[in-house]
Amino acid sequence: MQDYKIFELGDVVLQSGATLRDAKLAYKTFGTLNAAKDNVIVYPTWYSGQHYDNEWLIGPGMALDPDKYFIIIPNMLGNGLSSSPSNTPEPYNQARFPGVTSFDNVNLQHRLVTELFGIEKIKLVTGWSMGAQQTFQWGASFPDMVERIMPFCGSAKTSVHNFVFLESVKAALTADAAWNNGWYDTPPKKGLRAMARVYAGWGFSQAFYREKLYLQYGYSSLEDFLVAFWEGFFLVKDANNLLAMLWTWQQGDISNNPIYNGDFEKALGAIKAKAIVMPGQTDLYFPPEDNEYEASKMPNAEYRPIPSIWGHFAGGPGMNKVDVKFIDDALKELLAS
Amino acid sequence: MQDYKIFELGDVVLQSGATLRDAKLAYKTFGTLNAAKDNVIVYPTWYSGQHYDNEWLIGPGMALDPDKYFIIIPNMLGNGLSSSPSNTPEPYNQARFPGVTSFDNVNLQHRLVTELFGIEKIKLVTGWSMGAQQTFQWGASFPDMVERIMPFCGSAKTSVHNFVFLESVKAALTADAAWNNGWYDTPPKKGLRAMARVYAGWGFSQAFYREKLYLQYGYSSLEDFLVAFWEGFFLVKDANNLLAMLWTWQQGDISNNPIYNGDFEKALGAIKAKAIVMPGQTDLYFPPEDNEYEASKMPNAEYRPIPSIWGHFAGGPGMNKVDVKFIDDALKELLAS
Repeated sequence: MQDYKIFELGDVVLQSGATLRDAKLAYKTFGTLNAAKDNVIVYPTWYSGQHYDNEWLIGPGMALDPDKYFIIIPNMLGNGLSSSPSNTPEPYNQARFPGVTSFDNVNLQHRLVTELFGIEKIKLVTGWSMGAQQTFQWGASFPDMVERIMPFCGSAKTSVHNFVFLESVKAALTADAAWNNGWYDTPPKKGLRAMARVYAGWGFSQAFYREKLYLQYGYSSLEDFLVAFWEGFFLVKDANNLLAMLWTWQQGDISNNPIYNGDFEKALGAIKAKAIVMPGQTDLYFPPEDNEYEASKMPNAEYRPIPSIWGHFAGGPGMNKVDVKFIDDALKELLAS
Repeated sequence: MQDYKIFELGDVVLQSGATLRDAKLAYKTFGTLNAAKDNVIVYPTWYSGQHYDNEWLIGPGMALDPDKYFIIIPNMLGNGLSSSPSNTPEPYNQARFPGVTSFDNVNLQHRLVTELFGIEKIKLVTGWSMGAQQTFQWGASFPDMVERIMPFCGSAKTSVHNFVFLESVKAALTADAAWNNGWYDTPPKKGLRAMARVYAGWGFSQAFYREKLYLQYGYSSLEDFLVAFWEGFFLVKDANNLLAMLWTWQQGDISNNPIYNGDFEKALGAIKAKAIVMPGQTDLYFPPEDNEYEASKMPNAEYRPIPSIWGHFAGGPGMNKVDVKFIDDALKELLAS
């Protein structure tokens, strides 16, 4: 049973110049939009995640409480539910799926929010990782509409080092001849497994591995963690979808658009939303220093790292309760302010 | 013209159980062994490096001064000059080359030092990265022979996270079907390039990339750095050799031998040598915390990180003068003490 809906976008012209015809935005909502339409939270998805992967942060008694708020999770293009290489008909299928930026994604999400629901103000945008990238973009693209943002474990601009990390993921996946430049009939499983192993060292911190925390979460050995968690994570995903989202990530820059023309500091300075910018203290590909700089250029932002050895996964998806509480508490504080 | 010599080891029984017949240890020496045979420095090689890659730290006026010391650089097995997959005849060639541990390497180096040169005391053992691994092993295997050690950017035991990093390198290289389980006739170049891109994010720190230091060292763009430095670095090397040394690295543990039977703290405690244990402050796969722990368990060790944003490459191979001076100064201090 399908637990999400599709918003038909029609023909969409992307920043890359391509037109995505009959484009689709998959989304799921929680709670009820009130009469004043002022209880709205937008919560975008992360790299390879789909809306259900975001649900760990939603629930009665939590900051994202569906009894109080109308919470919209829009699925990022490329994630297999919204328009993606895997579900787009010829000629823009598979390897021909066009590049989509976060600016594109947020513009399409804005259409969903305004055209379908008639919403004019958003109380909060929040998200993990690439969800944070979209969160920053919301703040910069629609500064008069977004009242609060809390991007966690993600940046407003993809750093050079982060770009290199993504090159490594891509190189591992595409080293598999079965990938066939995107024109595969059967999945390039060796490449997906290689990509998973590359990701493994980056996703969690050195300290996480030093303390062997994976043994406490249902994995019986390091190799079991690499196979069951990491390889299992990527094997079920479509390679072209992963590459499409990776491209989106690599282009991450809230100022790379006609509003800001590449002036990154101007874009950060234009974010009016009250913000908590929340890196993971030990995140290896979104290190806290980048967020610290970004927060310093935003007029209403507080920089607040998650004191965790979970690396990037301090931010999700709900794996450890201490970090979830830290995030949830900050969201409650921000929503109450 | 060959600038190194070969020490014929005969038939060598390895920890893994295999016998490497007519094994060879390639080495190069600098300076002159004095009559008392008490001016000896041993300086092992690092992952994929050969003796000439070590020479940046040797020279008149430097700590490793050939006018004063007799400096021996033994090439690690698997590096293409000593016995390796690429130069060993059938049946132990290519994919059948046996696993060699640092314990094996150091035992063979000990034979070179004692049998060929009649040396009984070593003034200093030092090395970068896997050279540091062998340096620790020298201290633990021959505590009464080694007077000083200075391992830099390497550990006495390969950490779990470091092991995962190596898994990622291996997965990227072997995702290329041309690798053919080691039985290739032509090099698996796509895999070597993928491996290089994976290594790129780990070798230097986030801050190194943030400040785009590669632009100051002869690279015209990030992509130029990835291709010319990183891909160029690995493309000229033999895939099976790289995998053989990677295996050595993954097994790194100075106590995994009949002397210490896996008691790591005992092995550290047995190192009598006066030591400076020197991580790179921003090294991503040999993070300083592991060295800090190791130094705390050694009776005569000082922990002294290199204050550098060059990540693992703070330690070599001689790319930036500030870090070279920091290392050289510490070596001078240690040799004078």
